Amino acid sequence: MSAPSPAPSDPEPIAQPGEEVDWLLLNADWVVTCDAAMRTIRSGAVAISSDRLVAVGGTADLERRFRARRSIDLGGHLLMPGLVNTHTHAAMSCFRGIGDDLPLDRWLHEVVFPAERAAVAPEMVYWGTLLSCAEMLRNGITTFCDGYFFEESAARAVRDSGLRGTLGQGILDFPTPDHPDPATARLRAESFLQAFPESDGRLRPSLFCHAPYTCGPDTLRWVKALCRDRGILFQIHLSETEWEVRAIEERYGRRPVFHLDALGVLDEGTLAAHAVWVNGEEIRLLAERRVGISHNVASNMKLASGVAPLPELLDAGVVVGLGTDSCASNNALDLFREMDKVAKLHKVARLDPQVCPAETVLRLAASGGAAALGWDDEIGSLEAGKKADIIALDVNQPHLVPMYEPASHLVYAARGSDVRYAWVNGRLMLEEGVLSGIDAARAAAEVRKIAAQVAGK
Amino acid sequence: MSAPSPAPSDPEPIAQPGEEVDWLLLNADWVVTCDAAMRTIRSGAVAISSDRLVAVGGTADLERRFRARRSIDLGGHLLMPGLVNTHTHAAMSCFRGIGDDLPLDRWLHEVVFPAERAAVAPEMVYWGTLLSCAEMLRNGITTFCDGYFFEESAARAVRDSGLRGTLGQGILDFPTPDHPDPATARLRAESFLQAFPESDGRLRPSLFCHAPYTCGPDTLRWVKALCRDRGILFQIHLSETEWEVRAIEERYGRRPVFHLDALGVLDEGTLAAHAVWVNGEEIRLLAERRVGISHNVASNMKLASGVAPLPELLDAGVVVGLGTDSCASNNALDLFREMDKVAKLHKVARLDPQVCPAETVLRLAASGGAAALGWDDEIGSLEAGKKADIIALDVNQPHLVPMYEPASHLVYAARGSDVRYAWVNGRLMLEEGVLSGIDAARAAAEVRKIAAQVAGK
Repeated sequence: MSAPSPAPSDPEPIAQPGEEVDWLLLNADWVVTCDAAMRTIRSGAVAISSDRLVAVGGTADLERRFRARRSIDLGGHLLMPGLVNTHTHAAMSCFRGIGDDLPLDRWLHEVVFPAERAAVAPEMVYWGTLLSCAEMLRNGITTFCDGYFFEESAARAVRDSGLRGTLGQGILDFPTPDHPDPATARLRAESFLQAFPESDGRLRPSLFCHAPYTCGPDTLRWVKALCRDRGILFQIHLSETEWEVRAIEERYGRRPVFHLDALGVLDEGTLAAHAVWVNGEEIRLLAERRVGISHNVASNMKLASGVAPLPELLDAGVVVGLGTDSCASNNALDLFREMDKVAKLHKVARLDPQVCPAETVLRLAASGGAAALGWDDEIGSLEAGKKADIIALDVNQPHLVPMYEPASHLVYAARGSDVRYAWVNGRLMLEEGVLSGIDAARAAAEVRKIAAQVAGK
Repeated sequence: MSAPSPAPSDPEPIAQPGEEVDWLLLNADWVVTCDAAMRTIRSGAVAISSDRLVAVGGTADLERRFRARRSIDLGGHLLMPGLVNTHTHAAMSCFRGIGDDLPLDRWLHEVVFPAERAAVAPEMVYWGTLLSCAEMLRNGITTFCDGYFFEESAARAVRDSGLRGTLGQGILDFPTPDHPDPATARLRAESFLQAFPESDGRLRPSLFCHAPYTCGPDTLRWVKALCRDRGILFQIHLSETEWEVRAIEERYGRRPVFHLDALGVLDEGTLAAHAVWVNGEEIRLLAERRVGISHNVASNMKLASGVAPLPELLDAGVVVGLGTDSCASNNALDLFREMDKVAKLHKVARLDPQVCPAETVLRLAASGGAAALGWDDEIGSLEAGKKADIIALDVNQPHLVPMYEPASHLVYAARGSDVRYAWVNGRLMLEEGVLSGIDAARAAAEVRKIAAQVAGK
């Protein structure tokens, strides 16, 4: 890291000084923009002013055009947009690795629900979310989309962390940890929206109907209407398991996507997580309605939910991003791990090594995720005018040498720990692998206390 | 790291000083032994003398019993045996990420074979293998089993690296980069065995018949006979693709396992990589013959070879270890990534979350791999009397908090970059994440030169 060198005294007429910017990131071996053309730039640079990208281009060009208050030489690094995690329940870091490898019903009823009854509270949500923010930022995730209980506390954690996020309050037709009476869930939703913290454009509120089998038609309708009214994202788990499809067909006579469509819930303001058990007709409808899909490959594998028809979703033009799901069903918040699995699982599931090539998968983790959240006007690629959410990976390590093709390495060889720098909203939040702005040690200590309670039960 | 404190002057009679050892590794939050009982120890310790483990137990106990020339406080760390990578072609790091996402025949004929014709040479094998050793050791792999051409050069790289390895010279009934005339392949095998470098017990020679479809019955017989004669491991790729099974059935009238068995090739001195397309009868025979199997989940996924019947292999009592395969088909040499995929792929392939639980998978990466290589008398677990191949992971990081169950974290959340210390054969080779003993920067520079040649073709 170095301040720009002072210009030497020069007898020639001094050229017009360039525009002043806050940051110049220079000499990156590669800039992988993840723009529509998936343009990559050798010896690339980025200029940042306040919270925005001012320019993305070659180092020589940007050095000529701009003067910077701070500059940094990123030789040996690859620059790319911060990754977008479209689905998680961040507070559940408190339950990382309890009761793995059980059948789903035993896992839920003997492990997760008792743990939630014992532990879920505003403080737990705050510290669990903050710890997850630390983990995600270290892994190059600068934006995430969340859903849980006491979500005001999650929003405060994200505000304090410096990350960007869409925070969804969970709604069910059952008593929940933060709302014992489902009949008055609307009051809960409104109090959440009222309590939602102010931010510098980094935080967006959302409502999260848990699933078609836990939220009846009335609930789905009023929650979606409220989301439309406030212009916020409506989230739902959709067709995660085959059981769910059968249950909805039995109850409503339609498969889940058609059931939701009949209720008017499907549009570009809806994000559906999983979409594992959707058929061809449902895929066409999801594309037509511009619903965003969060593909959660690791969680679907670990819980043995099934293999989502990702190639068909993409072929049909459905908007898809990647999600980690929670630490309780993954058990890590790392989109590099997800990308590697997405690229590989669908190949072996089809016995076709051409399915889900690296560049396609990389796009899903960045611009695809931004689009699924309805945030692609501001994030998901390195382009002038977008928010300055940027990560830099150290590519000068044995497992990334040699480099024939950056997209290949980002999908098949890189990992979260390669991320050494991160800027969110123009602010340097990770520097040489060290977080600034999140007290991860404190969050870890608080989460360990919560875990001791849970384990002691 | 600290020298042991001098004892304060003490008026009481001084206790009999303990046995002197070279190293005491103390205060590890967890010691995961990977022994037969999968014993774990809280606040654990290990004593090392020369190249051997002298004791594994509680910190207080070992501190009482031993005086150490060097000791290290591993608070915040988890100790476990170094991992065993049972199948790779280490020199192929030179081809990491060229021509991904192609059909197998185009990948081989348009990418890999031309690259090999352009690049494979003793120097390339040396530097490519050394770079892979650096990558593997940083990821906690202390032993690996290799097969390639110019394998004397691979053996020299492993000797220089400090790792432990079984190094197999590749044999085919076709002209190869290091032997144009298959008719005299026996001379090539014997010259390899003659040139094999001396080592301190860390290196073992091996011969690697490429596959049943590239090595005819005579070749398979004489190579196996030579291996038996010298007491060395016989390696082969076996039933990686469905095409191979059909080809062998057409040519020899038997499925591949029965074909090899008829040739007398199957016994406890044989390691077969992949075993994806093996049926129930073949599985029973592999168990009966005590053949070691290397399960290469990431490679099988990326090349779309298929899903190996791992649960059936384990149920039948087949000896199984994990392998990364080469950087050209993975593209990383990291058994933490493999463990995570093994645990998850087989669950989703069966739609059963109970398949391949974490502890089972962890065992495969350590003691299972050692057994598959016929090396379990010396490595694969932390037990007194075994070789001192030990790794320590920093478990005080956001993605590993909280910790309810170490096996869960090692399989589902940890990654190679968490490995901060490694001892191989009693020698400290990785300290606070920094390699000592391998000039990784030099290896990377040499591999980049080779890659530039390959890319320039």
